[in-house]
Amino acid sequence: MEHSRRALIGGIGAGLALAGSGAPRAFAQNRKIGYAVVGLGSYATRQIMPNFAGCDSARLVALVSGTPAKLEQFGTQYKIPKTHRYSYADFDRIRDNPDIDAVYIVLPNSMHAEYSIRAAQAGKHVMCEKPMAISVAECQAMIAASKKAGKKLMIGYRSRFEQYNRLAIDLARSGHVGPTRLITAEHGFPAQPNQWRLDRPLSGGGSLMDIGIYSLNAARYLTGEEPVEVSAVESTDRNDPRFKTVEDRINFMLRFPSGIIANCVSSYSSSHNSYRVIGTQGYIDMEPATPYQGQSMTIRKDGVATPRVLPAAAKTQFAGQLDHLAECILTNATPIVPGEEGLADMRVIEAIYRSAAEHRSVGIKA
Amino acid sequence: MEHSRRALIGGIGAGLALAGSGAPRAFAQNRKIGYAVVGLGSYATRQIMPNFAGCDSARLVALVSGTPAKLEQFGTQYKIPKTHRYSYADFDRIRDNPDIDAVYIVLPNSMHAEYSIRAAQAGKHVMCEKPMAISVAECQAMIAASKKAGKKLMIGYRSRFEQYNRLAIDLARSGHVGPTRLITAEHGFPAQPNQWRLDRPLSGGGSLMDIGIYSLNAARYLTGEEPVEVSAVESTDRNDPRFKTVEDRINFMLRFPSGIIANCVSSYSSSHNSYRVIGTQGYIDMEPATPYQGQSMTIRKDGVATPRVLPAAAKTQFAGQLDHLAECILTNATPIVPGEEGLADMRVIEAIYRSAAEHRSVGIKA
Repeated sequence: MEHSRRALIGGIGAGLALAGSGAPRAFAQNRKIGYAVVGLGSYATRQIMPNFAGCDSARLVALVSGTPAKLEQFGTQYKIPKTHRYSYADFDRIRDNPDIDAVYIVLPNSMHAEYSIRAAQAGKHVMCEKPMAISVAECQAMIAASKKAGKKLMIGYRSRFEQYNRLAIDLARSGHVGPTRLITAEHGFPAQPNQWRLDRPLSGGGSLMDIGIYSLNAARYLTGEEPVEVSAVESTDRNDPRFKTVEDRINFMLRFPSGIIANCVSSYSSSHNSYRVIGTQGYIDMEPATPYQGQSMTIRKDGVATPRVLPAAAKTQFAGQLDHLAECILTNATPIVPGEEGLADMRVIEAIYRSAAEHRSVGIKA
Repeated sequence: MEHSRRALIGGIGAGLALAGSGAPRAFAQNRKIGYAVVGLGSYATRQIMPNFAGCDSARLVALVSGTPAKLEQFGTQYKIPKTHRYSYADFDRIRDNPDIDAVYIVLPNSMHAEYSIRAAQAGKHVMCEKPMAISVAECQAMIAASKKAGKKLMIGYRSRFEQYNRLAIDLARSGHVGPTRLITAEHGFPAQPNQWRLDRPLSGGGSLMDIGIYSLNAARYLTGEEPVEVSAVESTDRNDPRFKTVEDRINFMLRFPSGIIANCVSSYSSSHNSYRVIGTQGYIDMEPATPYQGQSMTIRKDGVATPRVLPAAAKTQFAGQLDHLAECILTNATPIVPGEEGLADMRVIEAIYRSAAEHRSVGIKA
């Protein structure tokens, strides 16, 4: 199933790439793809940027920030020349910088679409953080823009480059514990006040956009299927100053074509990071499932629970993700998590919000 | 909250008992209450009957079965005289046996109401297995019959007499890991074919009636609240010969007045036995949560997970349950799990089925 799904996505993606109007740029196979990181928040500076050092095919060549002090600090730290440091006012000038092959958009959610589209229009490939954007319409516009430019578009689903999650996908889809019957997936953390993620105009939503998307995406990648029905329940204390404009908890159930049901948690007021794939003969348990590091897997089969420990990975999930887009660019392949993957999540996210608001289950069509 | 809820239930129950038309029977404080076990299936013969040996206030005095060989086998084993062995045709003659104070109904679900009501009419106290019956209307009729007879009615929620579950209730309601925000509760097992539980006229429903009720009841006892909204999703392969008349999987989410959401699993095609109470500072995890023995608890608080191991209990949950009704009879107290508790579950069960069938959330009123 994994194979056929990848083939399908590859087929679609390849078609889009060929249909693009931009002329493919020729790359030497031995050069590294140059990234501009757009947005110098903590995720960019603490998780992404240090990981270029472990990449085979990607390197950091430019920075974009609205804060001159950050450009100075990180520009110095990463030896980025002043000519490769940009403000947002300067953003479109990246077009004229041939060292920049791709941009990595790490901005607040509501800015993903605009900057991804402007990057494509500037002739750059795009890596965009999840959630891809704040609406299905924006996701579609981003895909169209990259297609028109003949450039790649990939979404930052880092767990797809993490070895335990990859193993879980293989085990789940191959029926290692029997055909999957149920999935539980739980993600949440106590939101700290006064962050852009609690400001709807910037975030587009609350816990679901930010952390619940991990539960949703896991349910989709562990099944390899698209849900056909979603039912959601929200619980938010609007007297809590953190939750004036965004939701706290929004749990949801997904029904998949094969009959699998996924029970999912999304919370901004409690800590969760786990999933479990339950088959007819046992389960595959991951807790924590999607942290930056330290995944832990237990497999229960025929009544016996056994921890599954893998040798240390040669490459972090962050480096793997950065290298993947780079290698797709170098070989003209389609990323395993292209814009269509972000769009698929966003379709379900919109259905989850609708279900919770209307107190009914919502059918989802591809 | 536990205290006030018990006080409330006690108040209601005491009122019902006083309102009953039957004269209260006087019991010596030092005698044991005599039980007739009605239905000699595996749960009765393997779990309940051996546990009378560990009871302080209860003893097995009579058997009711439609199978003469079982009456002979277990009558001999438990030294039950032939005068205290009954067929269903003889059932109402228990009225004339003063050794029988109470009956324990361990029949298929659809027979609970009839035999509970006939037992009350015969002047006997009733312990009835869960689910209490197969509809709200039946539960109400059972409560009315016991009230009219001035006899106790208790439902066999054994986990309320199991020490880890009791501790979990205390910890959850006292905010040991902070105020509860979410609960996950998962129960299921692969149903074997050709059992009464797969035959709707006998069972009244599938996994929800049988095993999912543990998830539901746990969510209610861990919160001490009644859910106000339920949303359910069912998934059943009707081509599976086991599921011609009853559901396989039916998962549901409950929203409680305090804002807690419970994500619940009910499955007849995969194994589950766990719950987790997630507060703002950590969680209380039980896995397995509700087995006959071997509960396991882990508490995570402020980032540190610690197994919680209790000394061996002085009394099994089965003996504790049997003794509790006996002691309520002897002291004219109301059981902590009276008929009203079974009715409360059944109200939610009906709402769950309606939600799944109508693809919408269903509000629940007490």
